[in-house]
Amino acid sequence: MAAPAPLSPLAPKSFPVLPPIDGVRFATIAAGVRYAGRTDVMMAVFDRPAAVAGVLTRSKCPSAPVDWCRAHLTGGRARALIVNSGNANAFTGGVGAQAVAHVGETAAKIIGARPSDIFMASTGVIGEPLDGSKIADVLGALAAKADPGGLMDAARAIMTTDTFPKVATARAKIADKEASINGIAKGAGMIAPDMATMLAFVFTDAAIAAPILKGLLAKSTERSFNCITVDSDTSTSDTLLIFATGAAGNTPIAEAADPALGPFRRALDKVLLDLAHQVVRDGEGARKFVEVRVEGAKSRKSAKRIALSIANSPLVKTAIAGEDANWGRIVMAVGKAGERAERDKLDIHFGKIRVARGGMRDPDYSEEAVAAYMKRDKIVIVADVGVGRSSAKVWTCDLTKDYVAINGDYRS
Amino acid sequence: MAAPAPLSPLAPKSFPVLPPIDGVRFATIAAGVRYAGRTDVMMAVFDRPAAVAGVLTRSKCPSAPVDWCRAHLTGGRARALIVNSGNANAFTGGVGAQAVAHVGETAAKIIGARPSDIFMASTGVIGEPLDGSKIADVLGALAAKADPGGLMDAARAIMTTDTFPKVATARAKIADKEASINGIAKGAGMIAPDMATMLAFVFTDAAIAAPILKGLLAKSTERSFNCITVDSDTSTSDTLLIFATGAAGNTPIAEAADPALGPFRRALDKVLLDLAHQVVRDGEGARKFVEVRVEGAKSRKSAKRIALSIANSPLVKTAIAGEDANWGRIVMAVGKAGERAERDKLDIHFGKIRVARGGMRDPDYSEEAVAAYMKRDKIVIVADVGVGRSSAKVWTCDLTKDYVAINGDYRS
Repeated sequence: MAAPAPLSPLAPKSFPVLPPIDGVRFATIAAGVRYAGRTDVMMAVFDRPAAVAGVLTRSKCPSAPVDWCRAHLTGGRARALIVNSGNANAFTGGVGAQAVAHVGETAAKIIGARPSDIFMASTGVIGEPLDGSKIADVLGALAAKADPGGLMDAARAIMTTDTFPKVATARAKIADKEASINGIAKGAGMIAPDMATMLAFVFTDAAIAAPILKGLLAKSTERSFNCITVDSDTSTSDTLLIFATGAAGNTPIAEAADPALGPFRRALDKVLLDLAHQVVRDGEGARKFVEVRVEGAKSRKSAKRIALSIANSPLVKTAIAGEDANWGRIVMAVGKAGERAERDKLDIHFGKIRVARGGMRDPDYSEEAVAAYMKRDKIVIVADVGVGRSSAKVWTCDLTKDYVAINGDYRS
Repeated sequence: MAAPAPLSPLAPKSFPVLPPIDGVRFATIAAGVRYAGRTDVMMAVFDRPAAVAGVLTRSKCPSAPVDWCRAHLTGGRARALIVNSGNANAFTGGVGAQAVAHVGETAAKIIGARPSDIFMASTGVIGEPLDGSKIADVLGALAAKADPGGLMDAARAIMTTDTFPKVATARAKIADKEASINGIAKGAGMIAPDMATMLAFVFTDAAIAAPILKGLLAKSTERSFNCITVDSDTSTSDTLLIFATGAAGNTPIAEAADPALGPFRRALDKVLLDLAHQVVRDGEGARKFVEVRVEGAKSRKSAKRIALSIANSPLVKTAIAGEDANWGRIVMAVGKAGERAERDKLDIHFGKIRVARGGMRDPDYSEEAVAAYMKRDKIVIVADVGVGRSSAKVWTCDLTKDYVAINGDYRS
C-alpha cells in the first residue's frame, strides 16, 4: 500500500453533527479484508423493513455486489446494508458471486430477514477474489453492537484512498412531520490498486414508499452525482442507495408529484449535492474545485454535454492546474462536444471576468485580473454558447502532476 | 515561448527519401507570423489544377481556414496550398475570415487562379487575430522559388511544438502506371499556448477525379487518423487534404470500386497510418506507444468505441506511464464504453501475456513476465469482449507528468 495521502487542501473545514435517524443502527469493525489497523466493514441494520431505492453504475462490467443490488432493488425493502472497503469484488467471476451470496445469506439469518432484504457494496482492489467469510464472520458482532450514533464511524470504514470522510445532513418537513436526512459517501480516491469507486448511502426517517423514493433519487442524482467528474472514468462499482425507515410517522405520500414532498426533495438535493462536491474536493491530486456552467444552450441535456466536455478535457484541466485562464481550450472543448453552439456568439467568463465575447477575445479583458482570479481554489467557468436559453452546471477538479504520480505508481 | 522540447524518445530513427511528385512544387519562408528564426509559412503550387479532397475537424467551433476549405472543397480543384504555423486563426471572428480571404485572393492573383482553387490551413495560438498581410506579402516570393524537392522543408515549416517533422512515402501501381504518394503531418504537440492541431497533406501524381479521391481519403482516414488519440481533445483546426496532380498519366479511374485502385488504396492506407503513428509518437510527454486491439465485439464500430474508451482513459494511460499492467482499469474502460461486452467472457492480454480470462484474473499469469513487458516502449493491449467476431485497433500514448507540466505551464 502507498502511504496515506495528505488531507486534500479542498477538504471541508468542519464536519456537521449527524442526528440519529430512528429505525437504523450502525456498526463498524476491523475485519482485515485488506487493510490493517483500521475499520473496513460497516453494517446498517433496519429494525423494521425500510423502503430502499438505488442508482447503480452503468458499467457493462459491474461488480458482484452491484449485480446483487440490481436484482434485489426491485423488492424495494431493506433490513440491512453491508459495505466493505479493501476489495471491490469486481471481475471476480463465480467466486465473487458466491462471496456476495454467502454474506447476504449469513446476514439474513442473523437478523431474521430474507437474503433479498440485504444490500451490499464493496470498494477497493479489483480482480482479487474476495474471501466472503472474512465479512460473514463479523456480521454477528456487528449486528449485536449496532448503534444509532455510528454513522460517522461508518463513513470512515468505507474510505479507501479518500483523505477525509464525507458526510452531510439536512432536515425538512414532509407532509405533517419533520424528517432528517443523513448521507455518507466515498470516492474518488484512485491510488493504485484501488478503482475509482463512488459509494453513497443516504438514510432518512421519512415514510416514503420505494417507488416514490426511486423517482426522487433518480432526479436528485441527475443534478448531483451525475454532474461531477474527476477524470471521466466510470467505476465498475458505483452505488448510491437511499433507505427510508418511516419512523418519522408522516402521512404517507401517495405520488411523486405531491407538493407535500417539496421541502424533502430540496433537502435531499442539498445532501446529495453536498456529498458530490465533497467527492470532487477529494479528487486525486486536486488543488482546485472547478464549477463549469454552460448557458445559452438549446436544451438542458445539450448544456450538460457541453459542460462535461469542458470538465473532462485534459487540456482544460491541466491549464487550471497551471492557473492559466486558457480560454482557447474552452472553445476547443465546446467545439468537440458535438452539440449546437454558435461560434460567433460564444462568450466565456472566468468568474465575473469576461475573456471572450462574440466569438473573439474580449478586447477589454485584463490579463492581470484574470491571473489573480486563477490563483483561487474555487474556479468558475461560464460558457454561453449563444443558441438558446437552457443551462447546466457540473463540477470537477484540476489535473495535476500528483494525479499522474498517484495513478502511475506500481500496483504492488 | 517555452523552450523547444527534447526529441521524443519514440521518434523514428530515420527519415525516408521523398521522391519529387510531378506537378507540384514547394517553398517555405520565415514570415515572422509568431516564431523567430524559423520558417513558418509553406506554399505548394500546382502548375495545372490538381484534384483535391479533404477531411476537416468536426468541431462546432472551427477555425477560419477550416471554414474556407469546407466551402471550396466542393469544387474539387486546387492550384495552391498555403499553411502557416504560429497562429491558428481560430476564434478570431470576422477579422479571421478577412485574413483568410486576403491570403486566398492574393495567392489566386499571383498564380493566375480563382480564389476557390486556393486551400489553406493554420496552426498555433488561438484567439489571437492573425495579420493576413504577413502571409499575403510573402506569397510572391514563395511562388517564385517553389521547387519539386521542397517537401521536407515544408514538413518543418508547419511544425509547432512537434519534436520532429513527420513524412511518409509510398509507390503503387494505379491502372497502367506507377504513382508516388508523399505525405507530411504535424501534431499533436500542444505546449501552451498552442492548440492540439493535426494537419496532414498528401500529394500524389496519380490521376484520380476528386469524388473518387474523396471516397478513398474518407475510408483511409477512418483506419488511420480517426484511430489515434493523445488526450481525446479535438482541435478547432484539424485538416487533412490530398492532392492528385494526374502527372503519372494513368488511365483515369471511373469509379471507387474499380479493382485497378487496389494497390493505390493500400499505399495510401500505409502513408496515412505511418503519419498517424508518427503523430502519436510525438504526443506530448509520451514515453510509450500504445496499440489497443479490441476483438470479439459485435461490430467494428462497437470494437472501435471500446478501444477508444480504453485509449482515452486517464487511469489506463497513467498506469502505462507507471509501467503497471493494471488490467482492472482496462475492465473499467471496457465497462464504461457502454457497448456490448460479456464481463464473464472478457480476456485481456498485454502483448502475448494473458492477464485475465473468462472474467477473472488468469491464475497462470506471471507478474514477472508482464512487469518486464511493460518496460518496453511499445505496449500492445488486447481485450476480447466475447460477444462477436469484429475487431478494431487504435493507437495512443501514455499520460505522463510531462504531459501535465507541458500543458499546465502558463501561456505567456
